[in-house]
Amino acid sequence: MNDLDFNAWTCPLPLRDYPKIVLGHGGGGKLGNELVESLFLPVFSNESLDKLSDSAQLDVAELLRDGGRLAYSTDSFVVQPLFFRGGNIGHLAVCGTVNDVAMSGAKPLFLSAGFIIEEGLEVESLGKIVNSMGEVSRKANVKIVTGDTKVVNKGKGDGLFINTSGIGVIPAGVNIAPNLARKGDVIILSGEIGLHGIAIMSEREGLEFDAPIESDCANLNFLVEDILSVTKEIHVLRDPTRGGIASALNEISKAANVGIRIYDEKIPVPNIVRGACEMLGLDPYYVANEGKLLAILPKEKAEEVLAKMKQNEFGEKAVIIGEVVAEHQKMVVAKTAFGSTRVVDMQLGEQLPRIC
Amino acid sequence: MNDLDFNAWTCPLPLRDYPKIVLGHGGGGKLGNELVESLFLPVFSNESLDKLSDSAQLDVAELLRDGGRLAYSTDSFVVQPLFFRGGNIGHLAVCGTVNDVAMSGAKPLFLSAGFIIEEGLEVESLGKIVNSMGEVSRKANVKIVTGDTKVVNKGKGDGLFINTSGIGVIPAGVNIAPNLARKGDVIILSGEIGLHGIAIMSEREGLEFDAPIESDCANLNFLVEDILSVTKEIHVLRDPTRGGIASALNEISKAANVGIRIYDEKIPVPNIVRGACEMLGLDPYYVANEGKLLAILPKEKAEEVLAKMKQNEFGEKAVIIGEVVAEHQKMVVAKTAFGSTRVVDMQLGEQLPRIC
Repeated sequence: MNDLDFNAWTCPLPLRDYPKIVLGHGGGGKLGNELVESLFLPVFSNESLDKLSDSAQLDVAELLRDGGRLAYSTDSFVVQPLFFRGGNIGHLAVCGTVNDVAMSGAKPLFLSAGFIIEEGLEVESLGKIVNSMGEVSRKANVKIVTGDTKVVNKGKGDGLFINTSGIGVIPAGVNIAPNLARKGDVIILSGEIGLHGIAIMSEREGLEFDAPIESDCANLNFLVEDILSVTKEIHVLRDPTRGGIASALNEISKAANVGIRIYDEKIPVPNIVRGACEMLGLDPYYVANEGKLLAILPKEKAEEVLAKMKQNEFGEKAVIIGEVVAEHQKMVVAKTAFGSTRVVDMQLGEQLPRIC
Repeated sequence: MNDLDFNAWTCPLPLRDYPKIVLGHGGGGKLGNELVESLFLPVFSNESLDKLSDSAQLDVAELLRDGGRLAYSTDSFVVQPLFFRGGNIGHLAVCGTVNDVAMSGAKPLFLSAGFIIEEGLEVESLGKIVNSMGEVSRKANVKIVTGDTKVVNKGKGDGLFINTSGIGVIPAGVNIAPNLARKGDVIILSGEIGLHGIAIMSEREGLEFDAPIESDCANLNFLVEDILSVTKEIHVLRDPTRGGIASALNEISKAANVGIRIYDEKIPVPNIVRGACEMLGLDPYYVANEGKLLAILPKEKAEEVLAKMKQNEFGEKAVIIGEVVAEHQKMVVAKTAFGSTRVVDMQLGEQLPRIC
């Protein structure tokens, strides 16, 4: 697997004749094959993908022999703009699904990638996005083993949509799900919130801040491995993407039929996010993250897990933000710095559309 | 898993307030949850999906204990119009991926479904499509275990795009791939060609024929089971979708480094497809199918496999159309009814864009 070098890209020639994607690139003919062979295969290459079968064939029996289960997840990505500070739609499409798979405690192994391209997209833009996908896949140690390309007419898409799905292996003895939060559990947040959503928003609206805001988009699978290396007794993992930490915690409180209490002063909101949210009329608790996770686990393991997380580049600023309580079932309540409490409800829709 | 009855649909109410999809349905808030809980879950319901985790957890170790492997595939569907004679985009999205998984000889088990909805789509249309997906999933005995919904602004999509991915189990001893075609093998086609592509085309262009043309869209997994019940010694299976049988056979000849010879007079082209193709200037060999397969296998097993296929509703018109030869490697050659031969090449693009 290698990056495409667009400056030194002299061979294979055919794509050079089409600097922009045309409808034929989505057909079953030569153009579609050239796109696969000149652009996708050189970057993603692996034994399964290279066979170009209708489906990848994966030998995983050995990995499941000790009682492991599969984790399986999918997400479509429709973010606008396609490129933003800290990432792009391809980087996001790999990290998003790697993280969803990892949130069951699984080690992500294989991805699928489906591209829906709008006629007229620059082939070079697609190349850059594909390069990013290759790069972060290697970093996360996952393989893109099967894929598909469709092209839609100009004006019937929005540059590019990417769907990824992912398969991982959940080790025996690991049992993580939103409904497993228990009274007395502690809630750890892996770092600062709001960076992805505000980065997209400022890019889209052309907002300028004193310091540029970068998306936190990252693969969290090794952070999950670190957590599980301390104890398998983790009850819930969740990456608070769309709807932010507020929606994620609400969903958990409802699934597990418990109350959740968080402390405003404990939640790390970077000043730049706080400032942007005040300007834009947004609440940082509802802003999407793409490189953060919430871990809910028994109190007696919390300090040890926290210490381990802080050693990981994506958990350096991890912090305990609250706990699971028996009161106010199915509700999330925040304690303010002044000691009062307020309900942190689900929102009706989305503050920021199309952030992932 | 049940169908939604839109006439008797009184509960749950919330979706009734939104007869059309709005951007908020794609967010992490209440509207998105209502869409999942009122529309997707009632139809697709199963133990894995109902947990609404970031990923489904699947216990497949037992299925792989005897040396089985996983098959894994993905496809995005962008067909226009969304509804056509013989099916709709949802029906197609399930059959397409079930078939891709089955073409490795696997028994398909689990699907993911990702919906990219354009703002303004009628909720009732989405409901009908989801119902179709539920219906054909039950028929194919596969479960939709994980999913995702995104909404894009009006004018930035085309009603609905659906991505599905699928996982199946390939039994031990089955080894099927495009590069395994061997000199002397026989090529079986499971039935009449061209129906899906021409059905879509006539719907799109408002063409009227004496008899209506219906898409052949169908799940072929049980036909594959039937074939494998006769012999595991099948070399290649392929569903000739985009690019038709011509492209599928070309890809096989190139992957296996063999020549392929077919006989024009053996290939079942329905009169109505032949007529439409003549009118539209199309070649039926390049027209997409969605319920047909090509099987390539040793000659000595061919008659027995053919007889078994004919007992299946989707193989009634199965026929031997040609053979794998040592000559003209990487090329497909057709013998005409007059005894002459012509090269059946790959096309540059696609005769009919967006047929799947």
